[in-house]
Amino acid sequence: MDDLKTLIREIPDYPKPGILFYDLTTLLMDPRGFHLLVDRLCEHYSDGKKVDLVVGIEARGFIFAPALAYRLGAGFIPVRKPKKLPWKTASVTYQLEYGSDQLEIHEDAIRRGQRVLLCDDLLATGGTAAAAIDLVRRLGGEIAGAAFAVELRFLNGRTKLPGVDVFSLLKYDK
Amino acid sequence: MDDLKTLIREIPDYPKPGILFYDLTTLLMDPRGFHLLVDRLCEHYSDGKKVDLVVGIEARGFIFAPALAYRLGAGFIPVRKPKKLPWKTASVTYQLEYGSDQLEIHEDAIRRGQRVLLCDDLLATGGTAAAAIDLVRRLGGEIAGAAFAVELRFLNGRTKLPGVDVFSLLKYDK
Repeated sequence: MDDLKTLIREIPDYPKPGILFYDLTTLLMDPRGFHLLVDRLCEHYSDGKKVDLVVGIEARGFIFAPALAYRLGAGFIPVRKPKKLPWKTASVTYQLEYGSDQLEIHEDAIRRGQRVLLCDDLLATGGTAAAAIDLVRRLGGEIAGAAFAVELRFLNGRTKLPGVDVFSLLKYDK
Repeated sequence: MDDLKTLIREIPDYPKPGILFYDLTTLLMDPRGFHLLVDRLCEHYSDGKKVDLVVGIEARGFIFAPALAYRLGAGFIPVRKPKKLPWKTASVTYQLEYGSDQLEIHEDAIRRGQRVLLCDDLLATGGTAAAAIDLVRRLGGEIAGAAFAVELRFLNGRTKLPGVDVFSLLKYDK
């Protein structure tokens, strides 16, 4: 996948000193790169892994999840920050490095037994993904997998997603 | 397009009394409905209207614009709220009913002369779309058009987008 990595812009000291930020916008703006990224993420789910719905997390997850849903012939479900969804919601609170955050999903978004793929731009510590998976399961959905464009392996996010088929395309070890 | 309208949830008195909110999430969760929505939006640009890039506005525009970019073989460019983009940005301030808001784009997101399609979920008063188009033009992009899933015609948003090929799929007159 190194061909796609060359399209990613590496920004040192962002958002704070000592952090190397992987900026996907330079990949997204490349028509061939963006198309390949979506296709390669989808390939992992084309061998009989049935996907009914793709869940995306606001805001950067919205860039990838609907494109995967379109490509896989699935529906798209948004998971959003508090008070953004217009209907009745289920919500989850989860811990961050400093403080906590909250995510919401429409309580009628998923029918019991539907196969749900979580998709986000980045797997870092795994806290956000774990919270979204918690929401999906509380509504009765079965997790078909979790797909990420980028995985920061040194943060060990997979350990927060036990029993989940985690697939990431572009892996970084530092 | 009335088949797609039946998939939209109408929520009275949201976000405030007297407003009828058109909730697209019930359409997005329907695999066939979401697929049709994307395909029908794209059809308008398949007859020789060359599109190099699709611009989407955070957050709900991110749901549609990348899927269109994927389908049209174009790149995707995010327009975001202040301080969300990691690289050097151009920004625009625009008026809301009460107060003002700001949008940003990476200053190297568009090359001069590229054909850019703006895509958002909703055309209401047109202020946000006009601001995003302003950003695209300042970077040297040519506006190929503006595509919206839903248009609230009674708010006359098109008057804020003179000279732009505006295409909306689901029109409401009240």
